[in-house]
Amino acid sequence: MGPNETAAHEQTQDAMQECIEECLNCHAVCTITLQHCLASGGGEHTEVNLIGTLLDCAELCQTSANFMLRGSPYHVITCGACAELCRACEEACRAIAGDEQLAHCADVCAVCADSCDRMAALGEGDE
Amino acid sequence: MGPNETAAHEQTQDAMQECIEECLNCHAVCTITLQHCLASGGGEHTEVNLIGTLLDCAELCQTSANFMLRGSPYHVITCGACAELCRACEEACRAIAGDEQLAHCADVCAVCADSCDRMAALGEGDE
Amino acid sequence: MGPNETAAHEQTQDAMQECIEECLNCHAVCTITLQHCLASGGGEHTEVNLIGTLLDCAELCQTSANFMLRGSPYHVITCGACAELCRACEEACRAIAGDEQLAHCADVCAVCADSCDRMAALGEGDE
Amino acid sequence: MGPNETAAHEQTQDAMQECIEECLNCHAVCTITLQHCLASGGGEHTEVNLIGTLLDCAELCQTSANFMLRGSPYHVITCGACAELCRACEEACRAIAGDEQLAHCADVCAVCADSCDRMAALGEGDE
Repeated sequence: MGPNETAAHEQTQDAMQECIEECLNCHAVCTITLQHCLASGGGEHTEVNLIGTLLDCAELCQTSANFMLRGSPYHVITCGACAELCRACEEACRAIAGDEQLAHCADVCAVCADSCDRMAALGEGDE
Repeated sequence: MGPNETAAHEQTQDAMQECIEECLNCHAVCTITLQHCLASGGGEHTEVNLIGTLLDCAELCQTSANFMLRGSPYHVITCGACAELCRACEEACRAIAGDEQLAHCADVCAVCADSCDRMAALGEGDE
Repeated sequence: MGPNETAAHEQTQDAMQECIEECLNCHAVCTITLQHCLASGGGEHTEVNLIGTLLDCAELCQTSANFMLRGSPYHVITCGACAELCRACEEACRAIAGDEQLAHCADVCAVCADSCDRMAALGEGDE
Repeated sequence: MGPNETAAHEQTQDAMQECIEECLNCHAVCTITLQHCLASGGGEHTEVNLIGTLLDCAELCQTSANFMLRGSPYHVITCGACAELCRACEEACRAIAGDEQLAHCADVCAVCADSCDRMAALGEGDE
């Protein structure tokens, strides 16, 4: 590798490390938020779309982090899918106003979606 | 291996195959039941203890099945833990009367708990 | 729903049930094949690409099955991603000649990929 | 709650937060170590017992972290099982001398085992 390729490789490694951390964090925050919603005792907090999307987002973040931790070349596929789920979960959380935990979860999902989008875009250059 | 050992080995293989199937089935039924409860629109069906226990039981059944599929010697540990979760989930499902899906889930959990207990007991003889 | 819509809905339900079964089966076969490769004692059977792809395929099949079991509207995303991983895993298995377990795993992956592709295509019509 | 109970409750919360972090870290390090072993190109690094135990430990750490993130009362069961797997994985890693990544993984597993043991012991007092 020439100096430009080495720099590009290091940039990809840094981006992947950051994306792993965002996915693990988003997984944890979605799972904690799920528990918060269930404990809130009903109404829109236990509505099937919100709970289901929190479960979906948490699971795909975990899967996507695992692909990157294993150094899988297919992380491009899971990161692309994960970005979509994170945006869906951000939207589901923002749909309920006045809940700090949901607002925090939406912010974390938005950051993770951006990070996953960047990883997916970087990866497409490899193929 | 002498003939008695061979027969014992085959018996263990059959019991493990059956336990894998029970765990995969219990994982699927708990996950479908979770969706059923969330879609029921609130009340005791979305109570945090029921939803949480369904999630716990589904996840540990999946983990326990994966240990057995990998032929892990540590399946004794996960089967023992899984049996406890299945009994807790059976109890949580039976606590709500008059719901066919929950009654079915309780039955499946009970069968899986027995199967996991048998695997855990068989495995202890190996150590 | 009119009669045509009802028939279409039933067709989707049948296709989803079939796809859940294919994903669960593919997850199990990939995990058993992983164990088979590790137990084979080295060489091309423990090559990082093969083992890694078996792990990736098993994990995404499990995730995709879970999305469908939960009735998630986002199963279209995971089924699309899962179809790609199943084809990659089929290819990795076929690359090693003369191993019955790998040949079986490749066949199962191919069937699962087709089923996931059909689910992804059906789902796109809903959006 | 009186002041002593409040202090005990806060201590449990701190211990759980620490245990979640140890489990997530141990999951990540075991998964990275798995990739390291597979990439090392064979021999004792791809021996079925080592790879299998790394997979087992990673999966149970993830499951145990998820139970605690959901605030499940059954985390006592998964933490107890997880401690056993972490000790088995520590031993499998230490069995191969002269590999820095394996030595690091063994250290992380030992720390996680202690943390899980503490959580399991704290939990037993609740029941």
